[in-house]
Amino acid sequence: MTERNARASLLLHTVGLTLAFCGVAMVASAVVELLSGDTDDWLPLTVTGLIVVSVGYTLRTSTSVPKAIPLLDVFATVAASWVVISLVGTLPYLLTGTLTGLDLALFESVSGFTTTGATVIGAGPDPARYDASDGILFWRAITQWMGGMGVIALVVAVLPSIGGRGMGMMAAEAPGPTGERLTPRVRSTARRLWGVYLGFTVVVMVTYLLLGMNLFEAVTHAFTTVSTGGFSPNTASIAHYDSAMLEWLLVLFMFLAGTSFPMLYRVLRGRPGPLLRSVEFRTYAAVVGLAVLLIFFTADAGPRNLEALRQAAFMVVSIMSTTGYANTDFTLWADAAKGILLILMPLGAMSGSTAGGIKMIRLVAVASFAHRASLGQLHSRLVRPIRIGPTILDDRVANQIVGLVILALAAFGAGSLLIVLTGADLVTAFSASATSFGNVGPGLGEVSADFLAIPAFGRMVSVVLMVLGRLEIYPILLALVKLPIPRARPMLARMTRTDS
Amino acid sequence: MTERNARASLLLHTVGLTLAFCGVAMVASAVVELLSGDTDDWLPLTVTGLIVVSVGYTLRTSTSVPKAIPLLDVFATVAASWVVISLVGTLPYLLTGTLTGLDLALFESVSGFTTTGATVIGAGPDPARYDASDGILFWRAITQWMGGMGVIALVVAVLPSIGGRGMGMMAAEAPGPTGERLTPRVRSTARRLWGVYLGFTVVVMVTYLLLGMNLFEAVTHAFTTVSTGGFSPNTASIAHYDSAMLEWLLVLFMFLAGTSFPMLYRVLRGRPGPLLRSVEFRTYAAVVGLAVLLIFFTADAGPRNLEALRQAAFMVVSIMSTTGYANTDFTLWADAAKGILLILMPLGAMSGSTAGGIKMIRLVAVASFAHRASLGQLHSRLVRPIRIGPTILDDRVANQIVGLVILALAAFGAGSLLIVLTGADLVTAFSASATSFGNVGPGLGEVSADFLAIPAFGRMVSVVLMVLGRLEIYPILLALVKLPIPRARPMLARMTRTDS
Repeated sequence: MTERNARASLLLHTVGLTLAFCGVAMVASAVVELLSGDTDDWLPLTVTGLIVVSVGYTLRTSTSVPKAIPLLDVFATVAASWVVISLVGTLPYLLTGTLTGLDLALFESVSGFTTTGATVIGAGPDPARYDASDGILFWRAITQWMGGMGVIALVVAVLPSIGGRGMGMMAAEAPGPTGERLTPRVRSTARRLWGVYLGFTVVVMVTYLLLGMNLFEAVTHAFTTVSTGGFSPNTASIAHYDSAMLEWLLVLFMFLAGTSFPMLYRVLRGRPGPLLRSVEFRTYAAVVGLAVLLIFFTADAGPRNLEALRQAAFMVVSIMSTTGYANTDFTLWADAAKGILLILMPLGAMSGSTAGGIKMIRLVAVASFAHRASLGQLHSRLVRPIRIGPTILDDRVANQIVGLVILALAAFGAGSLLIVLTGADLVTAFSASATSFGNVGPGLGEVSADFLAIPAFGRMVSVVLMVLGRLEIYPILLALVKLPIPRARPMLARMTRTDS
Repeated sequence: MTERNARASLLLHTVGLTLAFCGVAMVASAVVELLSGDTDDWLPLTVTGLIVVSVGYTLRTSTSVPKAIPLLDVFATVAASWVVISLVGTLPYLLTGTLTGLDLALFESVSGFTTTGATVIGAGPDPARYDASDGILFWRAITQWMGGMGVIALVVAVLPSIGGRGMGMMAAEAPGPTGERLTPRVRSTARRLWGVYLGFTVVVMVTYLLLGMNLFEAVTHAFTTVSTGGFSPNTASIAHYDSAMLEWLLVLFMFLAGTSFPMLYRVLRGRPGPLLRSVEFRTYAAVVGLAVLLIFFTADAGPRNLEALRQAAFMVVSIMSTTGYANTDFTLWADAAKGILLILMPLGAMSGSTAGGIKMIRLVAVASFAHRASLGQLHSRLVRPIRIGPTILDDRVANQIVGLVILALAAFGAGSLLIVLTGADLVTAFSASATSFGNVGPGLGEVSADFLAIPAFGRMVSVVLMVLGRLEIYPILLALVKLPIPRARPMLARMTRTDS
């Protein structure tokens, strides 16, 4: 077992840094409110931000990263950091009075950091705008931006000496089964990923400015586009702008945000091959294409013209990339088209993206696993690897991927059951569970616009599902092993001993 | 490769015997119509029955069981037998004019043999009775009875020299991953299982007679109870009798029919231990108990009295055992209770029973698989077997079970998608898919009473799902390998060569 004191603690050090980033984002929101808004929200935002920064900075300076880090600590650190930011993220909503009640604020905070984008803020005095100041709307956009590429990745990017376990931390937080190194040094991998992310954000923002959004709208939408978050200051989301050009460009942006950032980095370095040849990318593109066609022919909400195609393409890419913007009222579509959206909700896009959900690469691996199992029925001595395209997966890795998909389905099923028990109807419950776990945002039925119609208990189930979906279950599950549950102790001790 | 001619063919021999059994059942239905009914249906039933018996008998006598049987032939034989009985099973409906249109007759035939119990026959002149003669109602009950324990098992029971491959055939048809031997000789295993099945049928029938059903009703209900089929001559199913005593006894009968027949055989031999100690049985009982409690408290269709408990217990056991009888109009229940039924639909009861669906034993194995995968995240050298209680599963077997569950979910998802594309609403489509794959019978929405409301294409999707659910996918999938698909050929040749 590792020694643990106030000085050497990966958990406290990381939480400290995470808090510091959050505090800075709060102060930034205060500045936005001062410049663009017309309320007093800048005051609580500034005060809270400064306090959070101070606490975080103190934690960071009074602790250090230990030399030997048990693997269990990595998961515990990631889980703890996410719990802390989720809680701290409620402060702006509560202290400005935007939301009253911890459960509502927690929902909005978690929906932000996990890039889900489901909301419990209703329409404001201007019904086209959510009932919140510019500062708060900026805050909820920036939570998605931080949560998208990952607050842990941000921490790793600034830590001077995290070493190999930094990759473990990033992998535990990053969407998808692969923690991919762009360079031998973990820190520079994290920096490059954040660099691509930042660059992408600027490109998207400038595009929005050119298309006529004001600076506030351009920045907030850019934050929630590249993070596949989906929060918008407008209650009608992107439909607010009624611009075909904007919507087509957004189809492209959301599609790209659903691909892999490590691969996008390589594309920017002039090597598009790895992305275009990857089986995951081709599966992603094929599923999107098929779903667009099916919805185009079944939505049945008007003539089958270019506008209908745009609406189908926008909504499919929005759901598949787990962004959750809307450019049309898809609740008016036929059930066939809604059913397709429902099936897409928990799937997610590519690993290494900012998307939530199961991810294409896992579906490919699971299909290969099932294929091998079928052939194994015939031939008892069959030796055949699990493949993702040309890549052969180690059986251990394949089993972990299949295990995760099983856990994801169990979480989805349990979540649906718990939500339906609160009195929600079937379509509302199943879609709320799917959209929460997939970090998408909108569901069907009563949760197609916001999550105000379902009871607080149902919303808390959603909160748990969002975190499970964002962190892909394992870190949460394994962090629970660290809690003092009597029966888990001996196993825990055995494991950390052999592993460290 | 095996030599193949008119003389030595497992496929033709088995199909011949299967046809002979079907023909006898048709003649029996004709006799029932003569004794109990008042239509001319006995004539087409007799003629068809005699022709089918003759064809079957001719096939059987002009062929023999080959000495060496490639494994692929086992799957092809089982699949072919089921296709043939499904088709031949349409003849009584078509020739008596009970159903017009091959798609309707095929639905009813497959729903019978797979023990699903969903129907496309409407109410008759007497609205309490389905629109069919006694002979036809007897025929559809006896198809469930034959399909329950398995027509292939029946074939194996009479084949003098099938040897080890007989076990393979029974395993391919039997619900659950284990083809369990009760004796060293396959034929006597098959005979003992059919013996238990027959005895159980008689006990149930006598009970029904004592409770006041007439002989016709007692026999047909006994057939569809022990087979977990669920067809009833009454449109109101068991609610028709309005008898609390009958319903409580049916809860017991359906529960028992959902347990394992090999284990029931041991219970009858004075050894209840294997059943009561089995993890699968305990899981089954626990899921039933939990679901009954949840529905009792959420159904919200009246006062929470003993009657409500009986309705909850009856419907839960009916769905879990995949029988599909109804003792109340569960469409009036709150969505919470309906949601629980929907989640239970594809699960099925125990392996070795006559139930459809995924089965408890597979859920336990899948849970153990996911547990190992979670621990494997922590400890890269973890060696830990998959367990079902005290039993350690070989990794190969575990992978095949997990593979099957994946394929089951894929079939359920694809089925739901195809049915929703026909224009059905979401709840109808998902529940139709679940109830068909689980061989349950009733669904929710528009398919809670019969499958007449969804289009013919949707019904054909259901037919495929019923067969996939009954034979548990692999035999169908592997039988397709025998079809002349160019790309599959080399693999096929390689496999049969090494395996035979």
